[in-house]
Amino acid sequence: MTQPALDPARIQPLANAVRALSMDAVEAAKSGHPGMPMGMADAATVLWTRHIKFDPKDTQWADRDRFVLSAGHGSMLLYSILHLIGVEEMTMEELKNFRQLGSKTAGHPEFGHAPGIETTTGPLGQGLATAVGMALGERMMNAQYGDDLVDHRTWVIASDGDLQEGVSQEAISIAGHLKLSKLVVLWDDNSIQIDGDTALSDTVDHRQRFESAGWMTMEVDGHDAAAVDKALNDAKMSDKPVLIACKTTIGFGAPTKAGTAGSHGAPLGAEEIKGAREALGWSHEPFVIPDEIYDGWRFAAELGAQTREAWDARLNASDKAEAFTAQLSAEPPKAALDALDAHIQKTLSDKPALATRASSGKAIEAFWQAFPGLIGGSADLTGSNNTHAPGMASITPDDFSGSYVHYGVREFGMAAAMNGLALHGGLRPYSGTFLVFSDYCRGAIRLSALMNQPVIYVFTHDSIGLGEDGPTHQPVEHLTALRSMPNVAVYRPGDAVEAAEAWKCALERTDGPTVLVLSRQKVPHVRQDDGSTNLSAKGAYVIRDAEGDAQITLIGTGTELSLAIEAQATLKDKGVHARVVSAPSLETFLKHEADYRASVVDPKLPVVAVEAALRWGWDGLIGLEGGFVGMDSFGASAPAGALYEHFGVTADAVVEQALKRV
Amino acid sequence: MTQPALDPARIQPLANAVRALSMDAVEAAKSGHPGMPMGMADAATVLWTRHIKFDPKDTQWADRDRFVLSAGHGSMLLYSILHLIGVEEMTMEELKNFRQLGSKTAGHPEFGHAPGIETTTGPLGQGLATAVGMALGERMMNAQYGDDLVDHRTWVIASDGDLQEGVSQEAISIAGHLKLSKLVVLWDDNSIQIDGDTALSDTVDHRQRFESAGWMTMEVDGHDAAAVDKALNDAKMSDKPVLIACKTTIGFGAPTKAGTAGSHGAPLGAEEIKGAREALGWSHEPFVIPDEIYDGWRFAAELGAQTREAWDARLNASDKAEAFTAQLSAEPPKAALDALDAHIQKTLSDKPALATRASSGKAIEAFWQAFPGLIGGSADLTGSNNTHAPGMASITPDDFSGSYVHYGVREFGMAAAMNGLALHGGLRPYSGTFLVFSDYCRGAIRLSALMNQPVIYVFTHDSIGLGEDGPTHQPVEHLTALRSMPNVAVYRPGDAVEAAEAWKCALERTDGPTVLVLSRQKVPHVRQDDGSTNLSAKGAYVIRDAEGDAQITLIGTGTELSLAIEAQATLKDKGVHARVVSAPSLETFLKHEADYRASVVDPKLPVVAVEAALRWGWDGLIGLEGGFVGMDSFGASAPAGALYEHFGVTADAVVEQALKRV
Repeated sequence: MTQPALDPARIQPLANAVRALSMDAVEAAKSGHPGMPMGMADAATVLWTRHIKFDPKDTQWADRDRFVLSAGHGSMLLYSILHLIGVEEMTMEELKNFRQLGSKTAGHPEFGHAPGIETTTGPLGQGLATAVGMALGERMMNAQYGDDLVDHRTWVIASDGDLQEGVSQEAISIAGHLKLSKLVVLWDDNSIQIDGDTALSDTVDHRQRFESAGWMTMEVDGHDAAAVDKALNDAKMSDKPVLIACKTTIGFGAPTKAGTAGSHGAPLGAEEIKGAREALGWSHEPFVIPDEIYDGWRFAAELGAQTREAWDARLNASDKAEAFTAQLSAEPPKAALDALDAHIQKTLSDKPALATRASSGKAIEAFWQAFPGLIGGSADLTGSNNTHAPGMASITPDDFSGSYVHYGVREFGMAAAMNGLALHGGLRPYSGTFLVFSDYCRGAIRLSALMNQPVIYVFTHDSIGLGEDGPTHQPVEHLTALRSMPNVAVYRPGDAVEAAEAWKCALERTDGPTVLVLSRQKVPHVRQDDGSTNLSAKGAYVIRDAEGDAQITLIGTGTELSLAIEAQATLKDKGVHARVVSAPSLETFLKHEADYRASVVDPKLPVVAVEAALRWGWDGLIGLEGGFVGMDSFGASAPAGALYEHFGVTADAVVEQALKRV
Repeated sequence: MTQPALDPARIQPLANAVRALSMDAVEAAKSGHPGMPMGMADAATVLWTRHIKFDPKDTQWADRDRFVLSAGHGSMLLYSILHLIGVEEMTMEELKNFRQLGSKTAGHPEFGHAPGIETTTGPLGQGLATAVGMALGERMMNAQYGDDLVDHRTWVIASDGDLQEGVSQEAISIAGHLKLSKLVVLWDDNSIQIDGDTALSDTVDHRQRFESAGWMTMEVDGHDAAAVDKALNDAKMSDKPVLIACKTTIGFGAPTKAGTAGSHGAPLGAEEIKGAREALGWSHEPFVIPDEIYDGWRFAAELGAQTREAWDARLNASDKAEAFTAQLSAEPPKAALDALDAHIQKTLSDKPALATRASSGKAIEAFWQAFPGLIGGSADLTGSNNTHAPGMASITPDDFSGSYVHYGVREFGMAAAMNGLALHGGLRPYSGTFLVFSDYCRGAIRLSALMNQPVIYVFTHDSIGLGEDGPTHQPVEHLTALRSMPNVAVYRPGDAVEAAEAWKCALERTDGPTVLVLSRQKVPHVRQDDGSTNLSAKGAYVIRDAEGDAQITLIGTGTELSLAIEAQATLKDKGVHARVVSAPSLETFLKHEADYRASVVDPKLPVVAVEAALRWGWDGLIGLEGGFVGMDSFGASAPAGALYEHFGVTADAVVEQALKRV
């Protein structure tokens, strides 16, 4: 069974099925974006029926091609195709329930809602940037397991808006630099965006732009099936990533709204849909697809199934099968966790006084070789982030067998690529930048969280403690901004043991991202327990109990934990018994039941918290009039010690606040 | 007095003064970045002594050229030049105090620290993007006031890192589209970044990239003064924005570290500095500048002073002088505030039930014509953001007399450009996107706040109330993320009157940014007072007091304010007296003294707050175990009504929480 020669007359009805389902579903939902699916239906149909390697009966097949609808607002394009090609979960009922509560057919494609949705898209630019990570992941897994097991493409449909977003530049720069030739982007080049003609705001020659980034580019009539088919074949021969500018008419078929922003983001209306049915020669009722149309789509699925069966046979015959399968699981290897445990024991014995970024580096050094698929990196701050362990080889355009990526000064593109690496499977990405630049990649951190992807963010230089670089580089509000994001675990360790524990939490977390918040400056060793329990995993715990009945609780995090401990000693000299709580993960602690919380922070006692950041988020624990030693403004440029004095983040200030309250 | 012909032998010692001051100051601070100032000293010296229109004796001169050191880490380049050219405040003592507490010479240039620092830089890419706003501002003011009063250039020095950041693409796309020909970027093309050679991560042909965006580009040896001079002259003739790739050696002059990442971000060390002094033929002691060097620099200053004097004469002779001067003040015109007051009175009488984004649009409509210099815009969501008032003309490459910018889908570039517009003077920018995409431009909001710039962010579609677009488009954590940023005023109005009041707060705020958080869905009219006091300005206030002694306080914001009012009525039927507080600006309220806070939210009464967002930040007011009706996860895709029911954000839930607590 082989692919028949292209017959444009055969493609068109298949594409019209996509158009009809898209406009009918948007109409039924009274909300949505019909224009894009109608414009790209022809090109997408050629792609899906003649090029994509996909088996709807085994949608998790590791060597399937990945398809990313970066222009996520055109979600009905994807849902229609998944239905037509035979993904069981994508029933006609789901299409009828487009954009309704509990449906698999959300307004924008949501990863996890249905097979075939490879990533959540909607925030423009990020689909393309995530796809770069997937394509990179393919090359990395290929380097490990060879063409027999890993040899697939990543296809993207992107809109004008995707290309206008800055993250697209970061993404195409990474892809072009690494020569990710199995990445193909179909640009829906329809010259229309929400405000009107793209010429209102965009005169970039995007082909030239992509070429400047090392891409091969082509241009085709997106409604000419033969031209699209040829372009896709040509793309497969490229030794560079490929952009195909598909000239299309938005809302193709709609009698008055085609080619206008009017077809972009609202139902077409009954009259316009009637006219479109006539213009397209589509006489079927809404949500009715004739068998011959299904047959046409499912022929492609049959080819996919055969290819998948052949791959299954290769996997079964391969001596790498076990390793391959194990690596595809998101679970951390036991050996890596054991290595971290051993490292924690050694740290308890060595008692090193290091910056927590350095402690993080030591933790990575301890386990990385026991974690196949671990992929490190940094946005051009490798030495500052301590993300590179001795012996790690860099990924280059010629060799993908390494485990470290130099992403360049591209925080957002890096974070989105990490999402793509994680989604690809078999890879566990982490990488670094300064905490303050978490703002630059926040959109991608949010998608890590929304998609439950175990991406690890290493954010160093976490407070005024970075010193002279000044307020542009000193985070004060970022802890709150990250802690408040759903499904993000934030750890700000206070010494080398907590740093290693935070890494263990990060590795063990398989259903969401972890943020490690690390210092530039040194901290003393403080942990005195036997290391048998991961105390950081509790969010907060008693690290130095009061001698005698506690009169007050002092809470410290990160580099300020030692200030709380210092204050405890001073208070003791003054006859005040204080309990010291370490809170490496405030939001983890706040999620505990009240009983555990009360066992750590006694609600009957006054509280003073110390953290070189804003108090926002602390008021619940300490009370609106409670004691907080931290920042209430942006920082300043000076040596770290001078800044801590200047802003009053000192053990003395903790003592003073405490004495006011006992 | 005219500029003498270029004599490279005369330029070099002037440039070496920059190099010496830079390496000596970094050495004294034991921290900083000597490599960039040493590499770009020649080009910067040609620029500043022969091209920039600048009078050190009148640094606020409205028609001065703007200079932006986008590569802010090379701050000693700028400080050295400002000192050498004679900016009084930039004393030698300041240079000696580089990176020390209270100095004007922060690690990165901080706007407001000293004259000649036109914008805060350091977060890479944003200097360039801010400069685009300045160059746009020049064209807009020129369209209003003509060449006689407004005719200056914007010069930028940018690094490899600046060009790798995605925001640079957004910025150059806007600049190229609008043909901002008086913007000239000198790219410090030294092929070195922190991780090592730029070839590790970057193979983009940046000249080709800029050309694809409509720029003119050139390449010169950055150490060849004559070549740089010619390029700058050529740049002045361009009808497009200009990129000059200056091929330089980072750390030029340092015997072993020049050309390596080793000279980038750390003091060179005594030996290396000694070698550099020898290599450069600079025999003077640290921080000693011979008079003839000062003379060379200050000749340029004299020329600048003459040009400024001629301009002063033109201003004095102009019939536009009064309007020009008034517009340069950041104060809002009284007529605009009066128009808003009248609009508030009309709204109180009309009692419209509108989405707050629509109410915001009505407010803009009411005052915009009375506010010269007001510049609206949107990141391709004009209709959705309600940012465009009838009659507003769009800015185009051929006509800058309008008052609306179509920024394209470029939130970060837009926000940075707004910073540039505000910094330029004479312009008050506002523009819109969806609240969820505040993440995309957060880095620029932070700089608005850090620089005290009165930029107005219109963020619509502020909760699950946007409905079907789903969780990628539904903010839940963004209110906290924005409220927690220092010096940002966030307003989430609950009806049309509060929306107008929020606009009044925004216009009256001249020392920091304002964020307006607005709904997609309709809200009822709720205000019943006489409108004589701007109640929203208080942050929170009693909008419906209890009949009889209050037993509980209900707090609502934005679209949930009406739920609190509805709950009050239900509770009354059940015999419970509740007070309803409207809190359009939570962080403003929390900054009040305890007395005012207690007069609104009685600390002795239980509290239930309702807001369709996360409770993070509310715990101080309501207590850790207090009542909160809101979100505790990401949202979902469904019609808004279904989502409010699904997530339990209802008046009934407020009632239930209240009954538990009285």
